[in-house]
Amino acid sequence: MSDAPEQFAAIDLGSNSFHMVVARLVAGELLIQEGLSEKVQLAAGLDPHNFITAPARERALACLARFAQRIQGIPRRNVRVVGTNALRVAEDAPAFMAEAQTVLGHDIEIIAGREEARLIYLGVSHSLPGLPGRTVVVDIGGGSTELIVGEQFDALERESMDIGCVSLTRRCFADGRCTDKQFDRALILARQEVVMHQRSFQSLGWQQAVGASGSIKAIGQVCEANGWSDGTITLDGLQRIRRRLVKAPSVAEAGLKGLKEDRVPIFAAGVAILTGVFEQLGLQSMVVSSGALREGVLYDLLGRLGHEDVRERSIATLMARNFVDTRHAERVAGTALALFDQVWAAFGHGDDDNWRDVLRWAALLHEVGLSVSHAQFHRHGAYLVQNSDLPGFSRRDQQLLAALVRNHRRKWAATPLAELPAAQQAPVATLCWLLRLATLLHHARSPEPLPSLALSRTADGLALAFPTGWLTEHPLTQADLDQEQEFCREAGGTLAVS
Amino acid sequence: MSDAPEQFAAIDLGSNSFHMVVARLVAGELLIQEGLSEKVQLAAGLDPHNFITAPARERALACLARFAQRIQGIPRRNVRVVGTNALRVAEDAPAFMAEAQTVLGHDIEIIAGREEARLIYLGVSHSLPGLPGRTVVVDIGGGSTELIVGEQFDALERESMDIGCVSLTRRCFADGRCTDKQFDRALILARQEVVMHQRSFQSLGWQQAVGASGSIKAIGQVCEANGWSDGTITLDGLQRIRRRLVKAPSVAEAGLKGLKEDRVPIFAAGVAILTGVFEQLGLQSMVVSSGALREGVLYDLLGRLGHEDVRERSIATLMARNFVDTRHAERVAGTALALFDQVWAAFGHGDDDNWRDVLRWAALLHEVGLSVSHAQFHRHGAYLVQNSDLPGFSRRDQQLLAALVRNHRRKWAATPLAELPAAQQAPVATLCWLLRLATLLHHARSPEPLPSLALSRTADGLALAFPTGWLTEHPLTQADLDQEQEFCREAGGTLAVS
Repeated sequence: MSDAPEQFAAIDLGSNSFHMVVARLVAGELLIQEGLSEKVQLAAGLDPHNFITAPARERALACLARFAQRIQGIPRRNVRVVGTNALRVAEDAPAFMAEAQTVLGHDIEIIAGREEARLIYLGVSHSLPGLPGRTVVVDIGGGSTELIVGEQFDALERESMDIGCVSLTRRCFADGRCTDKQFDRALILARQEVVMHQRSFQSLGWQQAVGASGSIKAIGQVCEANGWSDGTITLDGLQRIRRRLVKAPSVAEAGLKGLKEDRVPIFAAGVAILTGVFEQLGLQSMVVSSGALREGVLYDLLGRLGHEDVRERSIATLMARNFVDTRHAERVAGTALALFDQVWAAFGHGDDDNWRDVLRWAALLHEVGLSVSHAQFHRHGAYLVQNSDLPGFSRRDQQLLAALVRNHRRKWAATPLAELPAAQQAPVATLCWLLRLATLLHHARSPEPLPSLALSRTADGLALAFPTGWLTEHPLTQADLDQEQEFCREAGGTLAVS
Repeated sequence: MSDAPEQFAAIDLGSNSFHMVVARLVAGELLIQEGLSEKVQLAAGLDPHNFITAPARERALACLARFAQRIQGIPRRNVRVVGTNALRVAEDAPAFMAEAQTVLGHDIEIIAGREEARLIYLGVSHSLPGLPGRTVVVDIGGGSTELIVGEQFDALERESMDIGCVSLTRRCFADGRCTDKQFDRALILARQEVVMHQRSFQSLGWQQAVGASGSIKAIGQVCEANGWSDGTITLDGLQRIRRRLVKAPSVAEAGLKGLKEDRVPIFAAGVAILTGVFEQLGLQSMVVSSGALREGVLYDLLGRLGHEDVRERSIATLMARNFVDTRHAERVAGTALALFDQVWAAFGHGDDDNWRDVLRWAALLHEVGLSVSHAQFHRHGAYLVQNSDLPGFSRRDQQLLAALVRNHRRKWAATPLAELPAAQQAPVATLCWLLRLATLLHHARSPEPLPSLALSRTADGLALAFPTGWLTEHPLTQADLDQEQEFCREAGGTLAVS
């Protein structure tokens, strides 16, 4: 047994709170070691132009400094930090993230709403006993609310709705009061969001409803503390809460047992959203889950290390949706990896970021844009990779893959590379070279294997050697290489061919 | 996901350029995978006795070797290779073809001029909207010029004239200059050819003229780049080009914007031929088609995909490829048209541009972007509509449809509208209103029919009247309308609801 058990950490920079969970593997299962949460109120700390105000920035960075101390020493590959709605909408997120990453010592990924939903379901499903049939999961965040129907560990349908307890508080309960009229307005806004997804969710059906998030936990606690239930939430319980809220001059004065003081300002909004979900989906009761986004991130991290990588499924799905010629894509990927293995070490970029996988994914996706049009299909492919829902990938991952797809043929486009984080630019440029060569070598789409090729690094580029006579017999490849040498020269490198 | 997609290839050994196009069948439609063109200049490479000179032979065989590498593995039955005028006239064509067939691995057919004309019409007709009545099509090749009058997908009259931009360049513009005298001589030669067929063509008549081929595309591009038209060719445009050519010491020095360098040597001949066609047939204007011989060969290979209107097929294909919920799209389209019929006349925009069809198409396509991501799907939809291959629609048509899709929900985006031609902006803005209302009314995606609605024009917008009580029973629609009223106000209009 090792003295230093391998640890994993997940951090969730939520719109209302920042959470961290640290765990280790015991007998193949995660054992949670510690959980930390701080009410940073990042969403409430945005100014009217969606810039993070100085006090909010300070709260956030101070919190991250404390988190950082706890996770120092955990290997980079075992840590994942995700940002959600507040960072999705903050105009100055890049600047904030740069500071935060310095404080934290780890990269931060801003994840899309549907990816958030997937991770929440993963967390919830791992926190529940093996329930039979399907489960609908609701998570009310500060800036968005996620709805998922899943079975076992698989999310079947997932949506992120543009309504959260912080944003709805701003719109309807900013004065700290909760009148009938205010509540009705909030309820309609909530139902309006839910109704868009009602049909697709109801067509799947479910046997039970589960709630995650601080808002839902608080509602369950109020129900329990007032003796209305064992902590299970029912429509009756929600209506009792509503009646108490609208009778009182303010939420703070409603005297609801079990309601923590720091939850008071955004409580009414949470109740309105959950009531909307109950009414619109026809829910009877809901149990509260301890698992949530951060646990999902943890299981996802673990799955990546093991056999269950949702990213592979995302890549396969995007390929299928765009009618990619799979055999051809796999041939290109195989060649790209063979080239990678010959020269990667010589570049000294390191292996921290799974560059080999990144190259393989980009190769598998390089032709997705053909489904739009063969003219400029590298541009269309980059658009699709950047904007599609790709569970398991952060926006930044997608941006990186898109830069590769954009640059897999024709002239080098500098901008997509320049927009990547500085540390990624050199390795990604090398991956571009390799992907370009691999696609070029398979231009003819022949199922015949390529000859054995020798690729090596030179002072300012690459040298590729073919068996004697092969190029003469393959004039299209020769012409393509001539052209590629010119593209490389324009981009400031050289490609030697022999 | 298809493991072994069936590919089709068409190769056109033209007198000026060799072209290859490779496609595969996706969802019952051709999806172009790749187009390759090389300026082989076979006709220019004939000696005075019409034997292929050694350099031309080498250029041709080298090009075919490159094409061969690309199409190896495509079944013979899926490949068709046609040779046109230069091979029709070359004395040593049989010897050349024997060599070329060995290199290519496929048979080459030398097709007669009238067969060439039939195939050109097939290619052009699949790239054009289902125009009413008859169309005259002109294709200026290197060694011959084809004239066709057809209806829908049928060529009614087709002729191949013994004049082309390469052969005419040799006769009249070999010195790179274009004097008045040279142009007049070339023009007379062109008119002499056209006059032979004038009577039979004019007896059929036509409603519009369409041009194909590199020469005609180049003329259209020059007209557009110089601001003389939107790419449409008129007699006035041709005369402006002529004046610029004859004033300059050479074609190369005429400084014509939009004229590519490799087109310079044969440009004057193309202008002379097209001017001859215009004058002799009394044409007023001509639109340029993207489809040509090689597309015709491809469609011929596939067997005719019979459809009444290419545009309907394009819309249906785009919907299918993006997994659009067809029933919902059709419900929205039906409502949009019902609203259109109530108010269109009151706006006085006229019916010239098939506005009703435009609205229907936009409604059918409004959700295509959901295939990319639910977030911002109106933007993704606009991207797809703008960039997809949509046979039958011009780029400008696609821009217009994209502006509608972009604006079918959320805040009005002014830019896509402002970028349309001035005359279209007001009608398109009205269509946006109608499309937004139609999608809003179907927000709940209910299959139940809507109540009867009364829509009318007001001083600065629209007034929509519901049956008494209906809105109270449909609070989601009420809330959506409240929001829409706000969006309209922001956009400077009003939406009255009762």
